[in-house]
Amino acid sequence: MQFNLMPKPAEISSTTGEYRLQADFKIAITGAPQQRFYATATRFLRRLGERTGLFFEQHVLQPGEEVAQPSLLINYRRAGSVQLGEDESYTLTVDAGQILLQAENDIGAKHGLETLLQLLNADGDGYFFPGCEIIDQPRFQWRGLLIDVGRHFMPVEVIKRNLDGMAAMKMNVLHWHLSEDQGFRIESKIYPKLHELGSDGFYYSQEQVKDILTYAENRGIRVVPEFDVPGHAASWLVGYPELGSAPGPYKIERGWGIKYPAINPISATVLEFLDNFFGEMAALFPDPFFHIGGDEVEQGDYHKAEHWNKNPEIQAFMKKNSIKDNAALQAYFNRHVLEILTRHGKIMIGWEEILHESMPRNIVIQSWRGTTAMVDAARAGFRSLLSKGYYIDLIQPTAFHYLTDPLPADTPLNASEQKLILGGEATMWSEFVSPENIDSRIWPRTAAIAERLWSPANVNDVDDMYRRLEIISRQLEEHGLTHEKNYEMMLRRLTRGHDITALKNFVDVVEPVKIYRRNDLREHTSSSPLTRVIDAARPDAKVAREFGKTVDRYLQKRTFEQVQKLRYDLELWQKNHEQLDEIIRISPVLQEIRPLSEALAHCAAFALRALEILEKAGESRASDFAEVKKWFIAAAENPGQIELMVTPAMEKLVAAATNEHSTEKKH
Amino acid sequence: MQFNLMPKPAEISSTTGEYRLQADFKIAITGAPQQRFYATATRFLRRLGERTGLFFEQHVLQPGEEVAQPSLLINYRRAGSVQLGEDESYTLTVDAGQILLQAENDIGAKHGLETLLQLLNADGDGYFFPGCEIIDQPRFQWRGLLIDVGRHFMPVEVIKRNLDGMAAMKMNVLHWHLSEDQGFRIESKIYPKLHELGSDGFYYSQEQVKDILTYAENRGIRVVPEFDVPGHAASWLVGYPELGSAPGPYKIERGWGIKYPAINPISATVLEFLDNFFGEMAALFPDPFFHIGGDEVEQGDYHKAEHWNKNPEIQAFMKKNSIKDNAALQAYFNRHVLEILTRHGKIMIGWEEILHESMPRNIVIQSWRGTTAMVDAARAGFRSLLSKGYYIDLIQPTAFHYLTDPLPADTPLNASEQKLILGGEATMWSEFVSPENIDSRIWPRTAAIAERLWSPANVNDVDDMYRRLEIISRQLEEHGLTHEKNYEMMLRRLTRGHDITALKNFVDVVEPVKIYRRNDLREHTSSSPLTRVIDAARPDAKVAREFGKTVDRYLQKRTFEQVQKLRYDLELWQKNHEQLDEIIRISPVLQEIRPLSEALAHCAAFALRALEILEKAGESRASDFAEVKKWFIAAAENPGQIELMVTPAMEKLVAAATNEHSTEKKH
Repeated sequence: MQFNLMPKPAEISSTTGEYRLQADFKIAITGAPQQRFYATATRFLRRLGERTGLFFEQHVLQPGEEVAQPSLLINYRRAGSVQLGEDESYTLTVDAGQILLQAENDIGAKHGLETLLQLLNADGDGYFFPGCEIIDQPRFQWRGLLIDVGRHFMPVEVIKRNLDGMAAMKMNVLHWHLSEDQGFRIESKIYPKLHELGSDGFYYSQEQVKDILTYAENRGIRVVPEFDVPGHAASWLVGYPELGSAPGPYKIERGWGIKYPAINPISATVLEFLDNFFGEMAALFPDPFFHIGGDEVEQGDYHKAEHWNKNPEIQAFMKKNSIKDNAALQAYFNRHVLEILTRHGKIMIGWEEILHESMPRNIVIQSWRGTTAMVDAARAGFRSLLSKGYYIDLIQPTAFHYLTDPLPADTPLNASEQKLILGGEATMWSEFVSPENIDSRIWPRTAAIAERLWSPANVNDVDDMYRRLEIISRQLEEHGLTHEKNYEMMLRRLTRGHDITALKNFVDVVEPVKIYRRNDLREHTSSSPLTRVIDAARPDAKVAREFGKTVDRYLQKRTFEQVQKLRYDLELWQKNHEQLDEIIRISPVLQEIRPLSEALAHCAAFALRALEILEKAGESRASDFAEVKKWFIAAAENPGQIELMVTPAMEKLVAAATNEHSTEKKH
Repeated sequence: MQFNLMPKPAEISSTTGEYRLQADFKIAITGAPQQRFYATATRFLRRLGERTGLFFEQHVLQPGEEVAQPSLLINYRRAGSVQLGEDESYTLTVDAGQILLQAENDIGAKHGLETLLQLLNADGDGYFFPGCEIIDQPRFQWRGLLIDVGRHFMPVEVIKRNLDGMAAMKMNVLHWHLSEDQGFRIESKIYPKLHELGSDGFYYSQEQVKDILTYAENRGIRVVPEFDVPGHAASWLVGYPELGSAPGPYKIERGWGIKYPAINPISATVLEFLDNFFGEMAALFPDPFFHIGGDEVEQGDYHKAEHWNKNPEIQAFMKKNSIKDNAALQAYFNRHVLEILTRHGKIMIGWEEILHESMPRNIVIQSWRGTTAMVDAARAGFRSLLSKGYYIDLIQPTAFHYLTDPLPADTPLNASEQKLILGGEATMWSEFVSPENIDSRIWPRTAAIAERLWSPANVNDVDDMYRRLEIISRQLEEHGLTHEKNYEMMLRRLTRGHDITALKNFVDVVEPVKIYRRNDLREHTSSSPLTRVIDAARPDAKVAREFGKTVDRYLQKRTFEQVQKLRYDLELWQKNHEQLDEIIRISPVLQEIRPLSEALAHCAAFALRALEILEKAGESRASDFAEVKKWFIAAAENPGQIELMVTPAMEKLVAAATNEHSTEKKH
């Protein structure tokens, strides 16, 4: 029996028989049932109905309801606490007579329901759950997703649908990056100028925050707010310039990158302000962890310490107190912040820059520039989290993230140090995402990260991950996630409503440029449209990935099927430009892709010629590949800030054809 | 110059020249600018950027900003009031040098911006606005959309994106049907058991309501709440059974249709309750109009007056007060409700059942069962609204709604009576829609209703409406509306993630059954899945509509192009079943469509044969059409509660082939 589960359970075994699903399917809950879980089980039932079209008789599960002969019996001992370290285990047994789900608490039971939904299968006789026994629990206790709503605001529904996606992937922490140079995104009743002047009107009311917190808790997800200080704080200073290290006035930042404005680290006004504001937020967010950012402030490699360096009071203070550099100055500030947070009952967490020998060991370090920081933190006795390698905004392939393990086999950490590694977080920084395409950057790749953090370390078969990911990606759509469906919608806008076939053929094989190149190639602001080809194009382009694989296989061992597939693809791309050019002519936003579309056609033509030569074991003439270099060079350019992902594999074909040729000559 | 505007302006003329759009495009606002409109203009600028990919230099428009040489100059005299009867006119002039938008107030200016966005055009040289002069104002002052959130709850974002769609179509009233037998959808702080016990947890908090009200007002849209009394009120009675006409207890209703529970029309407790509750809601909703429903209560054709008829106190009261029937009893109740609403400063509006000779003339009548009620109401001196003919939940074709005019050329109303017709409302009743597919029932058809209510009466070319509707429908997607993109998503779920090509070929030519047949054919509840083929299938199936048209044209005058198109379609459908059946075999939810898919294949085969006979002007043999009746009868069945929309046209082809045959014989 092949299962399509993600994340893979700790232990699973097939058993004979299967549970056949009918409209009389009924759920009973025993043990210590509480209201929250009844809603979870009702949602499960609705989702099962929506996938199968079955008209179940149960409407809304209610405590106290008597259910005779339940199809699914759920038992758990106590209400779970949505807190770090809570037991999340469950066991699930499916046989022909009944499905039994057992857990210590309702959080484990909730995970079990997600697994059960993924087990759903079908044949000509109807739907069924295959017989199996599952014993499951997570490898890491902190499995998070950061969503940056500072750079681009994300409305409530974006957060909610992603919480649903996270719950489906058994993730348990939303790291909510709520303030940035470009926007302060939460209502403060004490300091209203924060959101009134710092947000362009795009912020969450406290009522909306409470709504999201309840939504998350009902899905077993903790919410850790981040208020980034002392850097990345320009939006705070628009309303409260007295908190800054320079006199001001300040404006909301529109461009990307590291900005000068920074909170004054030695100001009593600042500490009083933070005491009040963090106090307000500490009361709003129930989670004990509170993220203070602390990244990219004026220190180290990012030496833009203008506002600190030029402030005479700060300089005098440093001299007087023997604070040797800006890193030490930030540590000084952080100790005060820690004091404030401790007073408000919170545990401080921050980016790796807050790691400083002088800090007490009860803070948590989040590593983002290298795993070194995580290792150093653990060795120094700090608990830590890995985000380096999980930066999904950098448009890297799923496999790269999947194989990034916080504790790989060769970890330098000893057993007790390893216990300090809490887990990791995917980070959705939002310079280049809008509510329209953010899901396509988060999903499905984050599902692979979720598996890395939940499943045993030896679950690392990349091909099998991709196979399951495609199935899971479709299932994630049921939560309203738009990673699939907004693709063609965005293409329709790009063609101004005309036929998208040719454009889709092209965009299917391109990806946005990687890492931080986009803004280097063309400077963007927070107002720049995110509706161009680069924004519709998706990371880890599947068509390109599969073409590359087919070429590799073909070059190892040629089969008729592979040749057919290659020829089909190459002919499509060779012919595509002519059609696409017609669309480009009436849709000026597409003019930027014309050179690449043309290059694709030429490169495909060369690759086709190479394929024919390889197939005939014939010789290539010099004239066959005239201008080949020119076109492959053109294909490697990045107009429109996109990358053609199929031309490297085409070059392999051309190389093979020309090499074989010369090899043959030598024989 | 062909324009693609919807609704069409009152007056438009082409002028020479055009305004060429560049990244330096800038907006200036003069006159009496207020904050609300700056946000509107900023949204316009973002949308323009998103359609063109241009990086405009203006970020967020701010009052007081100096804009040198604006590309678009907007001038209006005063802040508009989002109230019935407000001036909504504007004029728009585009020439090569500048775009000038003028209006009495910002609501007119907002309409002008929507028109300008629709004017956007492009050629090989880039984007441009064609030269034109527009003078525009609406024909009717009340252009509404009812959304029923009682039967199926619709989250905040569903309402918001539809408000955006409405604003784009210059509609100005959201009629929010907030209570039903199946759910009470708004938080009451005075009577919390209304939402706590009457909603299964699916309701709007008052904060969410305020958020939506602001959102609507910013888009020039009034919000009229409806609290349906005395019928359709089972959900009220779950928490407050003392309001009912029977002793209770009551449950949330799960099935559809008219239910027995009704509020007690003679109870002092009820009036006190309504006074308090309507007072709470009257304060929350700023619009002067307040809808009390009043439909389908126990009277007239819908004689299920069990709870009133069997209540001895009610019967005694009627006898004592000479109330002759239940209609008079309801009028008695309505007069009390009117008194309450008047005290709270509201104007009462209700469905046509509240029309009663004894009612004062300041109430508004909404006609839904027939235009007669609207006409009667106007003749009796009541203001009224038309909804009969705009019931978009009944899955009728766009053209039908489009040609329904509140005041057709042959209206029996005289000029002063005509003034009492305020306009109309499309009604999205929600028995069979979920947040996932509601947009596909509202859009694009409602855009045609919006045009009927805005544009001059002589704008009624159905073909041109369909041409423009397709363009406008794509533009509506920019607001997050899902009428296009959720189609394939729903098909992907139906194939369990497998290839959707064959399923799409089939669903493209079917529609849900019409009017109220769905529930007659298969009884649904509020928990029934809305994810089957019937739910993915869309009203007014375009492929089928165009096929029907091609057949009609072909039968009038045959051209090679038509024959080719018909042959292509018919061959596709003939072959489709084999592929689709493979998918049906692994996706049991599709089993219900197998008979129709098979019938489609057979009917297409007959139609193809008919086409070949017609083309060869040959003779048909009896054997050519053996079993033809059997298959067309099968195609007219409704398994899965869907209708095959192409077979009637195929029957015409067959009839033509067999007729010609016999005609030829006679010659």
